[in-house]
Amino acid sequence: MSSHVFDQAIALEPQADGTFTGHTSAAYANMVGPFGGVTAAQVMNAVLLHPQRLGDPVSLTINFAAALSHAPFVIEARAARTNRSTQHWVIEVRQDGETVITATAFTALRRDTWGVDEDAMPVCPPPQDVPMGDGPMPIEWVKRYEMRPVAGAMPTVWDGSGDSSLTQLWLRDNPPRPLDFASLTALADVFFPRVFVRRATLVPIGTVTMTIYFHADASQLAASGMGYLMGQARAQAFRNGYFDHTAQLWSEAGILLATTQQLVYYKN
Amino acid sequence: MSSHVFDQAIALEPQADGTFTGHTSAAYANMVGPFGGVTAAQVMNAVLLHPQRLGDPVSLTINFAAALSHAPFVIEARAARTNRSTQHWVIEVRQDGETVITATAFTALRRDTWGVDEDAMPVCPPPQDVPMGDGPMPIEWVKRYEMRPVAGAMPTVWDGSGDSSLTQLWLRDNPPRPLDFASLTALADVFFPRVFVRRATLVPIGTVTMTIYFHADASQLAASGMGYLMGQARAQAFRNGYFDHTAQLWSEAGILLATTQQLVYYKN
Repeated sequence: MSSHVFDQAIALEPQADGTFTGHTSAAYANMVGPFGGVTAAQVMNAVLLHPQRLGDPVSLTINFAAALSHAPFVIEARAARTNRSTQHWVIEVRQDGETVITATAFTALRRDTWGVDEDAMPVCPPPQDVPMGDGPMPIEWVKRYEMRPVAGAMPTVWDGSGDSSLTQLWLRDNPPRPLDFASLTALADVFFPRVFVRRATLVPIGTVTMTIYFHADASQLAASGMGYLMGQARAQAFRNGYFDHTAQLWSEAGILLATTQQLVYYKN
Repeated sequence: MSSHVFDQAIALEPQADGTFTGHTSAAYANMVGPFGGVTAAQVMNAVLLHPQRLGDPVSLTINFAAALSHAPFVIEARAARTNRSTQHWVIEVRQDGETVITATAFTALRRDTWGVDEDAMPVCPPPQDVPMGDGPMPIEWVKRYEMRPVAGAMPTVWDGSGDSSLTQLWLRDNPPRPLDFASLTALADVFFPRVFVRRATLVPIGTVTMTIYFHADASQLAASGMGYLMGQARAQAFRNGYFDHTAQLWSEAGILLATTQQLVYYKN
């Protein structure tokens, strides 16, 4: 039984009716409510722990419908369609009977095929040569990750001077923890809001929806072990209250493990 | 009442129990089953027509759980969470009582904010100077779109010689039709499978999941009218049976209307 703080945070209790119960984690607290990456990992974990699961995660979409309270919740994961080697999941998280998260996931038995990473890892100095970066403000969950920005770190002066939202950084759990589908799900959400980087201005924000495609299988994640990941994120558009970003996560050895996209609400 | 073939294809009948019924369209037939873009537009239309809808579409994720038969279907769209100015939808499509599609959508009342398109439209010749392209094979739905590839057209020789999956093309409905959320949803899925372009090899494929972020509001779509869109798509990784792509759709005037991402099954 792992005693890593992340495993404690995503632990779920199976219930007699097939649902799971869980609780938000003080160790991964955000400004308001919990860090969305850990909520996504909890949702993923409900599928991973489900007795009917077929295969490993290939995609996950999570929609943040309301701010979670620091309180218990119920997760219902339903296998909406099971094919020969693939399965589609519909997931809902409720607090006090109200829906706070909706999600869908796709799991599959994968087999060897031709393949290529079209997106190569950016050339950058090794993680041990890159100093730790600071978050935009003191937040509990940020302490649970080692982040070493190579480009596009948080502005140190908030003067509205930004001209690009591109960030590249080395990252891993703090303390280090062997990579798996749950931790990769959370790591896909560690990128600070692109609007902070692009504008060098702090505005209220909140992720609305996030999608992750898992290109790696369990053995490739295991091979990544406790090594760093190279994460890269860039916004495509900021418009009328919402911006998006696309992001990539490579293993330290340069294998593209996951790609992800999210849409974020912003004010002003 | 529009008599455009697209409007006929996405027409839905509201039922007494709050669901909608629809039918696949022979005009948008794919190799097997219907064109996924029109299925996505039908799903979007169930939200657009729903009496409880609040605001306009901002995001949509659709999961293709099984090949649709050329037959009637039932769509159930449920407002899982309604906030002051935002709403989260869970949608399911069934044929003969079996789930064939799962989806989630997010709608919102948008307001003016600071904004910028970080992804600029690629510089390319105007649509009238670019000849029509061919599809990889004769398929009915392809005739419903005008596609003028600027870069990364379908290979003419299938010799395994490809080295990039990037495609840029002008596109619009054929015959032209004023742009709206439903037609933009379908247009987000017109990109031919990236594996064909990257490998110059035809292999069996099928989209598993697609996510669309609508950066434009209804007035910006209306301003695009019957003009062309510039579409750009590129894969990030091909691995063990699944590849992804990210794509952008700009108005002819260069406004980024939507960004989209999909995961596609492939064989070999």
